[in-house]
Amino acid sequence: MDGQYLPMSEARISVLDYGFLHSDATYDVVHVWKGAFFRLDAHIDRFLNGLDKLHMSIPYDTDQIAAILHNCVALSGLQNAYVEFICTRGTSPTFSRDPRDAVNRFIAFAIPFGSVANPDQMQRGLHAAISDVVRIPPPSVDPTIKNYHWLDLITGLYDAYNKGAETVILKDANGTLAEGPGFNLFTVKNGHVTTPEHGVLLGITRQTVFDLCALHQIPCTAAAVSEEALRTADEAFISSTAGGVMPLTRINGDPIGTGNIGPITQLLTEAYWNSHADASLRSVVSYPDP
Amino acid sequence: MDGQYLPMSEARISVLDYGFLHSDATYDVVHVWKGAFFRLDAHIDRFLNGLDKLHMSIPYDTDQIAAILHNCVALSGLQNAYVEFICTRGTSPTFSRDPRDAVNRFIAFAIPFGSVANPDQMQRGLHAAISDVVRIPPPSVDPTIKNYHWLDLITGLYDAYNKGAETVILKDANGTLAEGPGFNLFTVKNGHVTTPEHGVLLGITRQTVFDLCALHQIPCTAAAVSEEALRTADEAFISSTAGGVMPLTRINGDPIGTGNIGPITQLLTEAYWNSHADASLRSVVSYPDP
Repeated sequence: MDGQYLPMSEARISVLDYGFLHSDATYDVVHVWKGAFFRLDAHIDRFLNGLDKLHMSIPYDTDQIAAILHNCVALSGLQNAYVEFICTRGTSPTFSRDPRDAVNRFIAFAIPFGSVANPDQMQRGLHAAISDVVRIPPPSVDPTIKNYHWLDLITGLYDAYNKGAETVILKDANGTLAEGPGFNLFTVKNGHVTTPEHGVLLGITRQTVFDLCALHQIPCTAAAVSEEALRTADEAFISSTAGGVMPLTRINGDPIGTGNIGPITQLLTEAYWNSHADASLRSVVSYPDP
Repeated sequence: MDGQYLPMSEARISVLDYGFLHSDATYDVVHVWKGAFFRLDAHIDRFLNGLDKLHMSIPYDTDQIAAILHNCVALSGLQNAYVEFICTRGTSPTFSRDPRDAVNRFIAFAIPFGSVANPDQMQRGLHAAISDVVRIPPPSVDPTIKNYHWLDLITGLYDAYNKGAETVILKDANGTLAEGPGFNLFTVKNGHVTTPEHGVLLGITRQTVFDLCALHQIPCTAAAVSEEALRTADEAFISSTAGGVMPLTRINGDPIGTGNIGPITQLLTEAYWNSHADASLRSVVSYPDP
C-alpha cells in the first residue's frame, strides 16, 4: 500500500476511501501454488480492463504490477497464497463528491491460500441451494468489471444456510442460473459441459475449464442453464481461483446425478492441478534466502 | 472505531474487512445543523432495520448509538456536520468465507457538512442527465437497506459528465426514473408533487418532503415517474441529507419548466431549513467548553 510493504495487520484504508464508502473499486485475485503464480498475465489484463472501464488510473503498468505482486508473495514467504490486488477510487482531498477529484489507490496483499470448498467438501462435493435473489444484472453493473457488489450473494448465502445448504447459486434476471459467491457454475449432461453465458463474471478459472475441455476433447459451451438443467444434470461443479475446480453434488437437498463426484468433474479437477506444471502458465516467485 | 475516538486521519479499517471486500455493510447519514442533529431517531431506526435484514449485530442500542454520535460531533467541534455511522460484516479470525463467522464492526465519523449541490447550484439549480444505466433492482439488493453499492450510480455519473451535466438520474428496471447518487427525485406539475415509488431508497429527507407538503397542503404522492414527466414538469428538485431540498433546473441540456427555480421548490427549501428549529426534530449537541 502507498509504496510500502506491511504486515497484514497494518494494511488498513481510510474509512473515507470511496472504495469503501461507494464500493467504487475493482480488483482481481490470483493464486500462487507451490511457489509459482498461475496465469498471472490473464489476471492483470482483466484488472487493467476493469480500471479502464471505471475511468481509474494507477502509476503502474503490467510488469510493475507483476513485480509488486511477486514482492508481496516473496516477503510473505507463502508457497501457496491467495493474492488480491485492488484499485479504489480513493479519497478526495476536499471531500468532493465528484469521483474525478479522487486520487485512485492501488493495494495488493497475499494471505494463505483459501478455497471455496474445504477438504471435506472436496471429498464429497458441495451442497448448494438455488436462491430467488437475482444476481445484480449487467444493465446495472458490468460483470466483466470484477467488483465488490456482493450483497445479493450474501443475502442468497443466508437463504441457503436457512435451507441447510452450504453455498448458493443465484439466478439472472431471465430466471436462468447465473453464479455463486466467488465462483462460476458448470453442469455435465451426456458428456457435454455447459456454463451460464450471460450476466456472470468471465472467470479466469472458467476459461481454464474451457481450455482443459478442449485439450481433453470434452464439448464445453456457454449457454443459458435452467434450474431444471442443474437438477437433472449427471454432474455439476464450480470454478474459482479460490479452489480451482470443485464438485457440487447436492442441490436444494437432492443429489445431482448419483450424488457422487462424477468422472468428468474428477478428470477436470486433476487436469486443473496438473496444468499448474505448465511452464507457459507459471510465474515462479523468487523467495529471499531463509 | 473499536471503542475509541480518533482524528479522521487515523480512522482506517482493515483491507480484509468484508465491509470493504464484499461491500457487506449498511450505514446511515444524519446531519448536524447549528449544533443540533436533525431527525436523529429516524436515521438510527433505519440503520437498525438494515442491520437486522443483513443478520448483523452490534453491542449498542438506540440510546448508545445516539450517545456515540453525540460524542463524535462534540469532540469534532463542528456546528454543521455530516455524520455517518456504519456496520460492516467485519473480519473473520480464520479467513473463513462464511459471513456468520465474522465479527461485525461499528464505525461512526463526523466531517464538515457537505451538500450534493454547491452554493452556485443552489442559486441556479442543478443540471442532470438521464442515464441508461439501471439502478440495481430490488430483487438483487433491497434498497431499504442503505448500502454502498454505487457502481451503477458512478457509471451513470461519468455518462452524465460526458453529456455536459453535473449529476445523473438512473432508471429502474421498468424504464421509469429511480434516483440519483445519494438523492431522491421529485417533480412538480400543476401544483402536484410526485416522487418515484419503487426501487428507491426511502430517504428520511424524502419523508420530510412528504411531511412538509402535508403541512403546506401541497398534494404529494409516490408513483412511477417517466422520463417524459420529468422533461415536461413545471419544476423539479432532489432531496438528500447532504443538502436537504435542492433545485433541479435542467435535464439532458434542456430547461425544466422556465429553467428557473420554481415557487414550490423554493417554498419547500425554506420550509425544510425552517423545520430545523422544530424542537421535536432536534437533538442538541453538548460541546465541551472551548
